[in-house]
Amino acid sequence: MSENDTSWMHTEMGSTTPTTITVCGMDLADDIMGKISFTDLAFRMVAGRLPDERESVLFNAVLVSLADHGITPTVLAARLTYLGAPEAVQGAIAAGVLGGGSVFLGVAEDAARFLDEILGELLPVPDDLELHQAASEALSKLRKEGRRTPGLGHPVHKETDPRVPRMYELAAELQLLGPHLRLLEIVAEVSEQTSGRRLPINGAGVAGAALADLGFDWRIIRGFALLARTAGLLGHLAEEMRTPMAMPLWQMVEAGSTE
Amino acid sequence: MSENDTSWMHTEMGSTTPTTITVCGMDLADDIMGKISFTDLAFRMVAGRLPDERESVLFNAVLVSLADHGITPTVLAARLTYLGAPEAVQGAIAAGVLGGGSVFLGVAEDAARFLDEILGELLPVPDDLELHQAASEALSKLRKEGRRTPGLGHPVHKETDPRVPRMYELAAELQLLGPHLRLLEIVAEVSEQTSGRRLPINGAGVAGAALADLGFDWRIIRGFALLARTAGLLGHLAEEMRTPMAMPLWQMVEAGSTE
Amino acid sequence: MSENDTSWMHTEMGSTTPTTITVCGMDLADDIMGKISFTDLAFRMVAGRLPDERESVLFNAVLVSLADHGITPTVLAARLTYLGAPEAVQGAIAAGVLGGGSVFLGVAEDAARFLDEILGELLPVPDDLELHQAASEALSKLRKEGRRTPGLGHPVHKETDPRVPRMYELAAELQLLGPHLRLLEIVAEVSEQTSGRRLPINGAGVAGAALADLGFDWRIIRGFALLARTAGLLGHLAEEMRTPMAMPLWQMVEAGSTE
Amino acid sequence: MSENDTSWMHTEMGSTTPTTITVCGMDLADDIMGKISFTDLAFRMVAGRLPDERESVLFNAVLVSLADHGITPTVLAARLTYLGAPEAVQGAIAAGVLGGGSVFLGVAEDAARFLDEILGELLPVPDDLELHQAASEALSKLRKEGRRTPGLGHPVHKETDPRVPRMYELAAELQLLGPHLRLLEIVAEVSEQTSGRRLPINGAGVAGAALADLGFDWRIIRGFALLARTAGLLGHLAEEMRTPMAMPLWQMVEAGSTE
Repeated sequence: MSENDTSWMHTEMGSTTPTTITVCGMDLADDIMGKISFTDLAFRMVAGRLPDERESVLFNAVLVSLADHGITPTVLAARLTYLGAPEAVQGAIAAGVLGGGSVFLGVAEDAARFLDEILGELLPVPDDLELHQAASEALSKLRKEGRRTPGLGHPVHKETDPRVPRMYELAAELQLLGPHLRLLEIVAEVSEQTSGRRLPINGAGVAGAALADLGFDWRIIRGFALLARTAGLLGHLAEEMRTPMAMPLWQMVEAGSTE
Repeated sequence: MSENDTSWMHTEMGSTTPTTITVCGMDLADDIMGKISFTDLAFRMVAGRLPDERESVLFNAVLVSLADHGITPTVLAARLTYLGAPEAVQGAIAAGVLGGGSVFLGVAEDAARFLDEILGELLPVPDDLELHQAASEALSKLRKEGRRTPGLGHPVHKETDPRVPRMYELAAELQLLGPHLRLLEIVAEVSEQTSGRRLPINGAGVAGAALADLGFDWRIIRGFALLARTAGLLGHLAEEMRTPMAMPLWQMVEAGSTE
Repeated sequence: MSENDTSWMHTEMGSTTPTTITVCGMDLADDIMGKISFTDLAFRMVAGRLPDERESVLFNAVLVSLADHGITPTVLAARLTYLGAPEAVQGAIAAGVLGGGSVFLGVAEDAARFLDEILGELLPVPDDLELHQAASEALSKLRKEGRRTPGLGHPVHKETDPRVPRMYELAAELQLLGPHLRLLEIVAEVSEQTSGRRLPINGAGVAGAALADLGFDWRIIRGFALLARTAGLLGHLAEEMRTPMAMPLWQMVEAGSTE
Repeated sequence: MSENDTSWMHTEMGSTTPTTITVCGMDLADDIMGKISFTDLAFRMVAGRLPDERESVLFNAVLVSLADHGITPTVLAARLTYLGAPEAVQGAIAAGVLGGGSVFLGVAEDAARFLDEILGELLPVPDDLELHQAASEALSKLRKEGRRTPGLGHPVHKETDPRVPRMYELAAELQLLGPHLRLLEIVAEVSEQTSGRRLPINGAGVAGAALADLGFDWRIIRGFALLARTAGLLGHLAEEMRTPMAMPLWQMVEAGSTE
C-alpha cells in the first residue's frame, strides 16, 4: 500500500453533509425515518438489501426468539456491572454482550457454520436424499472427533424447544423454509436414528439456520444474537433500576465466602 | 436482609420451563414469534407495555435515526478490535458500545434529562407560555454555570440537522408531539433570542425528547441509542469482513508515528 | 488542521524498527528487561519519569492495596462472563474492569480530585493551619450540597480500614507523606469534629491521596486502580478454571427466579 | 447440587472482616503492603505461591516485554473510546483489552499451549534428542494441517526479535531456562532445517514459553499479556489526555470516506 493510498477510507454504510445524512445509500430523513423499521434497516445494513415482507417477518421472529431468557449469566454480569458504574450504562451493556461467546450465543453461529459447510459440498438445490446422505457423513465425522452436533440438545428443553416447531411453522407459511432449516431437521432425524437417543433441535440452532437461509454469512450471525440480546439487557437494566438484584446477590455470595 | 430471603431473585423479564418460554408475561412461541416485531418487544421490555401502532412508528423512527453515521470513533474502535480478535465478535461490538459516553450518544440522555427536570417543576399539561418562561429560566441558569444547552448545536449540521424537522413532522402526524418535544423547540427559540445566535436542535436531542415523550425514563435512554448503534456496528463489521479498514488505518498511523 | 498534517501521529510511548524496540525512550531488550520492574515501568509510562526507590515502594503498596477484596461485584461479573466465553479471556477481564465506575473504584479518583482542588487554591507548601481552614470550608460546602466526603467511610471497616494506618506509616517512613495524604487526615479530623461522627478514611481514599502525592493527575488515578484490579481478576479467573463459581451462582438465581 | 449447598461460595483469593483484610491468606496491611511487590502478588494470585527472587526477575522481564509496542490497534481502540467517554476510563481500558484476541496477544497463549502439548507426551525431563524428535513430528503435523507454527515469525523483526535473545540470556543467567524455552529454540531450528527458511522466534512466543516454564497453565497466559498491556494502555491514555490523537484520526478517516 502506498502511503498516499487512502482508498481504504471508504464505507458504504453512510455519510453526512451539512444538510443531509445518507444511510445505506438512502436519505435518512426522507427515505428511512417513518418508512423503514429499525429491524429492516438492521437487515439492510448487513445484507446490503432490504428484506421483503415475508423475510422481515421471519427475521423479526428470529430476533425476538433470541432477545431474552430471564436470568442468564450475561444478565447477571450486566446487572453487577451497573451496580459499580451506574453512570456508564454502556459498560453494563458491554459486560452483558461479552458473555456472548462459544458456550451460549455462539451456538447460533456454530449451527449456521456447520450447516453451511455441509451445503457447500452439495449442488445448489439438494434433494432430501442428498441431504440425508450428507448429514450421515457429517455426523459420523463429528462422532469420530468426539464433538457435539451444533444446534442439537438443550439442558432444559429435553423433549422440544418450543421455539423450534414455531420457527418451522412460520418459515413454511412464509415459504422461507430453505436448505439450512431443512438440513437441520434431517440432521436431528439422522442423529436420533444412529445414536438411538433423541436430541431436539435447540432455539439457537434453529435461529442460526433461519438466518443462514435468509442469506447471512455465518460469520455475522453471532452479531444478530447479540443485537437481540441487547434489547433484553435494556429490559433487565431498567428493571435493575427499579428492583435491584445485584446488591443482594453480591452480599449473599460475599457472606457465604467468608463463613 | 435475612440470609434466607431470596425474594430479590425475581424478574418479570422472562422464565423457562421444560416445555415453555415466557417473555414479559407472554408465551414466546405462541404470542410473540411472528406476531410482535423485535422493536415492539424492545419497547415492551423497557416500558412494561406494548406500544400502539403510532408509538411504534415513532419509536422505529428514533432508532433508525440513531443507528449509524458512517465513520465514527466507535465504529473505528469496533473495527480495530475485530482486527485483533475476529473469533470474538462480541468483543468488537462491546468496544463499539463503550464509546457511547458523554460526548456523543450521551447527548440523547442529557437532553431528555434536561427537559424532564424542567417539566418536573411544572403542572402536568403546561401551555406554551409556561414552557417559554421555564425555558428562559433554565437557559439563564445554564449560562451562569457556563454549561452548554443539551440537545442544541452540531459540528456539521450548522443550520439544520435533517433528522429534526422530520421527527417533528412525524410526531405531529402521529399526534405524539408531547411536552418534551415541544419544550425542546421552545428552548431552541429562546436560546436564539437571548444569545442572538442560532443553535439548531440536534438529532440526538430530538431523539431523546421523542423517547421521553414516549414515556421512557431518561436513565435508560442512552441504552436505546446503544441498541440502535449496535445495528450500525453489525453493518460496519460485516463490511470490515469484506473490505478491511482497520489494518491500513493502523499501518498508516504506525508508520506516521515512527518517522 | 490541514489534511496533510500528520504531526498528531506521534507517541512517546514506543516504537519499533526491524532490529530494535524502544519503550519510553529506552531500549526494551538492553535497558528494561531484567533491569526495570513491571511496576516501575508502569509508573514511568504514565509519569514520564522513573520512580526512585522510595517512590517505588509506596507505589507498589498502593497497587497491592487495591488488587483484590475477595468476592466483589466486578469479580462475579468477570467469572460469569468467563462461563459464557472461556475462549476469550479478554472479555472476562474487560467485564471485570467495566464495573470500576463511580461506586467502588472511582472513589480513589474522587478523593484525589477533591484533595487536589482544595490544594490548588492554596500556596505550594501549606501548613496545617491552612489545611485545617481549607478542609473546614470544603466540608461545609459539601454539606450544603448534600454530598458525601470523598475518601471517608466504609460499609465494613466502620472503625478503621486497616490499609489506612499502614499506608500512613509507610509514607512517613519513606518521607513521602505529602500534602494530599496530610490533607486527607485533616479532612477526617475536621469531619469528625463538626459532625460528631467518626467516618474513617477508606482504603480507596488513601490510595488516591498517595498516588496524587506521587505526582499523578487525578484523571489517570482510576486507571491505576483498574491495573491493580486486573491482577486480582486474573487470580479469580485462574480459580474459576479450577473451582467454578459462576455456574452454581447462575443456577441458584435462575431457580430462585422461577419458583 | 442441592439448593442449599453453598459450598461453591468460596474463594481463596481474599476476605474481609471489620478489622482485617486478607489477600491470598496473608494480612494485607501487615504482610503485603510495603513488603511484597505488585508483580510478586500478581504471580502469587495466579500460581498459588510466591515467586523466589530469580523467578520474580524473569516474570518482570516477561511483563515489561509485553507492556507496549507503540501504536497498535488496541491502543487506537482505547484512545478512540476515551474520546467518546472520557468520564469512564474503565471503558477505554476495556476496549483496549478486547483487541487482545487470537491475532496479536493470543500468540503467547498459543505458543505455550503448543509447547505444553508436545512436552505432555514426553517423559518429565526430556533431553535434546527427544525434544528434536518431538519437534520434528509436531512441525510436520502442523505442515500437513496447513497451520503456522505458534511463536515463530514476525512481520517487522524478520531476522531477530530483540526480546528473544535477551529473554534466553536472562533465563540462562537465572537458571530458569526450562523445557518450554528449550523446546521453542529447537522448534525454530528444526523449522529452519526442514523448510529452508528462517522464521525467528517472536517476542510473544518467548514470553509464553517463559511463563509456561515458570509453571503457569497456558489457559491463563493470555491474561498476563493483558495485565502487561493494561499498563501500556494507561500510558497511552495519559498521553491522549495531553496530546490527543483520536480526534484528528477520526476526522481524517471521516473526511477521506466522504470525498
